[in-house]
Amino acid sequence: MSEHLYEKTIASTTVYEGKVIDVKVDDVKLPNGHTSKREIVNHPGAVAVIALTPEGNLLLVRQFRKPLERTIVEIPAGKLELNEEPLHSAKRELEEETGYRSNQLEFVTSFYTSPGFADEIVHIYFTDQLTAGHVQTDEDEFVDLLEVTLEDAEKMIETKEIFDAKTAFAIQYLRLRKDI
Amino acid sequence: MSEHLYEKTIASTTVYEGKVIDVKVDDVKLPNGHTSKREIVNHPGAVAVIALTPEGNLLLVRQFRKPLERTIVEIPAGKLELNEEPLHSAKRELEEETGYRSNQLEFVTSFYTSPGFADEIVHIYFTDQLTAGHVQTDEDEFVDLLEVTLEDAEKMIETKEIFDAKTAFAIQYLRLRKDI
Repeated sequence: MSEHLYEKTIASTTVYEGKVIDVKVDDVKLPNGHTSKREIVNHPGAVAVIALTPEGNLLLVRQFRKPLERTIVEIPAGKLELNEEPLHSAKRELEEETGYRSNQLEFVTSFYTSPGFADEIVHIYFTDQLTAGHVQTDEDEFVDLLEVTLEDAEKMIETKEIFDAKTAFAIQYLRLRKDI
Repeated sequence: MSEHLYEKTIASTTVYEGKVIDVKVDDVKLPNGHTSKREIVNHPGAVAVIALTPEGNLLLVRQFRKPLERTIVEIPAGKLELNEEPLHSAKRELEEETGYRSNQLEFVTSFYTSPGFADEIVHIYFTDQLTAGHVQTDEDEFVDLLEVTLEDAEKMIETKEIFDAKTAFAIQYLRLRKDI
């Protein structure tokens, strides 16, 4: 039903092949017959977990994000490994980053983060069924673990410590869930 | 307070300079003294508008997203132009994509969309004060305008027509706002 919006690929040039992302430039034919270029970042996809402790606190991690040249505070998350099933990845990242385990992750939603220039998709899970495990951070991964109330998480949006899309989504999700 | 997480840049190499994005690879020194590489996409930033018509319907646009090779349905949005103030950009994009004008855009929040690999930030505005204007789409921009109830927008998440972070955030925002 949307053929009148379609952009046909005329040529595709890979301009960068990296460890995490690849970048290509596609020449496309627009619906009006004109040509244009589209810059596209290919990303393996990611998972993120909205996790509440038995006390009802939200698990968050502070980490340095090189693209922003600062630390921000996010829900636990990580990239999908090759051929890894998202649910498996979510369990793995939760334990690696927080030391908590869960076998009861509930799928919430998936969304593309930057559809204008990237194909990164994030799969979001929820759990309030955590058991103590062990932090097994990669030796080259550095994160601080935080456990905060929903009210304190909302304050961290105002102070811009929380500053990313998936965590902003997570906090609204919890507010809505509390209303149920 | 977060020096123990800091990643110092040792070297930075630009690997792609494009129309919308630039890509660089930074060599960094990790907190444990090891070195690593960070792939970073620089993006000019964007705005998006959560806009309700006088009837209480949400303005959405369907467009083809080349990175996804499909159309998705999103709240009206667009890139910041050079040195453009986000509020001005939001007004401009709203009118260009939907034909509606508003001089009463309320700032909602800003968030980074993909802090792991990109510095794209999206500034989100809300309005329920629209006046009729004219669709002034760039001749090479193709979008379908939709006006839907919040309930129908929620169904479009289930059918994966709505599939991006800012629009998922917008729908939660409206649900929470309705509860106020």
